[in-house]
Amino acid sequence: MNFLEERIVKDGVVKEGNVLKVDSFLNHQMDVSLFDEMGKEFAKRFAGKTINKILTIEASGIGIASVVALHFPGAPVVFAKKSQSINIDGDVYTAEVESFTHKNISHVIVSRKYLSPEDHLLIIDDFLANGCALQGLIQIANQAGASVEGIGIAIEKGFQPGGRMIRNMGYQLESLAIVESMDAASGTIEFRKQ
Amino acid sequence: MNFLEERIVKDGVVKEGNVLKVDSFLNHQMDVSLFDEMGKEFAKRFAGKTINKILTIEASGIGIASVVALHFPGAPVVFAKKSQSINIDGDVYTAEVESFTHKNISHVIVSRKYLSPEDHLLIIDDFLANGCALQGLIQIANQAGASVEGIGIAIEKGFQPGGRMIRNMGYQLESLAIVESMDAASGTIEFRKQ
Repeated sequence: MNFLEERIVKDGVVKEGNVLKVDSFLNHQMDVSLFDEMGKEFAKRFAGKTINKILTIEASGIGIASVVALHFPGAPVVFAKKSQSINIDGDVYTAEVESFTHKNISHVIVSRKYLSPEDHLLIIDDFLANGCALQGLIQIANQAGASVEGIGIAIEKGFQPGGRMIRNMGYQLESLAIVESMDAASGTIEFRKQ
Repeated sequence: MNFLEERIVKDGVVKEGNVLKVDSFLNHQMDVSLFDEMGKEFAKRFAGKTINKILTIEASGIGIASVVALHFPGAPVVFAKKSQSINIDGDVYTAEVESFTHKNISHVIVSRKYLSPEDHLLIIDDFLANGCALQGLIQIANQAGASVEGIGIAIEKGFQPGGRMIRNMGYQLESLAIVESMDAASGTIEFRKQ
């Protein structure tokens, strides 16, 4: 097991309905030293790729992306926002995102000022399950003409279709932990061998 | 001028209605190396304080708080969420927050699991104007019995009442840039001498 899989086994909680709660260290309380380890690992896995910008989505992707970005010198983070703000100009890229967690559809937007055909993106997010958030981010990158050099995910639910679909489209998708199965009764988690 | 004031002068845009747009480096596209500088500065200003946890609020506080937290070893970040998620247990602290930017009232919540009387908090946010978000975070800290050791803000609008109110309550509030006045016509910004 790698450092993230170990942490999931130690502090993650498996709930009925294939819910994996990792809010003690990943997406409500956030262990930034763990994120720093993740940044080191992503820097290794995407070595050789030219990456000048990190793209993520609010809210739980932002913390990981910000610390990971420190391992890609010179790359700022752009985060897709879930609702229009009067502090953003009207000129935005936009995509629809369905949320498994919140059971709703939301619009995500990125200002046109911050993505362009010159951008070589690493997309970062905390979870990949059905891949809806990721598809929205890829759609926004495509609208901008930016190239997606890679996708870095903390935890992928390997038994849901998002990861396979993204890999089938030819993207370099690196998930630091891929959960193959979970059992709420016993609390056990099986990871895919990497 | 310090590093943040210089950056605001260089890349900030003053708009009518006392709006200061800094979304090219602070709260949409985020310059994480700037956040790292901010972390160093906060570590200096809060030296001597015992801080074991960083508290912030989604979305734009999260990036700054996460990078700043690397300068407070061992301190995780907890971010207050703006809407209830099925991934959070029902057992939460809650406060109402009025948003100047979005012109609405929202609920913010923090799971009771992640704040307790043992916690010595540094509250971090990107902006302080009327202080509504900050009052919500302080209210949540008080509900938890946690102590607020300090408050670190990137940009304070010194001509709005939030900062004075917070300082009058005795909190150590450190704003890296305090805007005294802005003029949209000329684009000029005056900072408070610190």
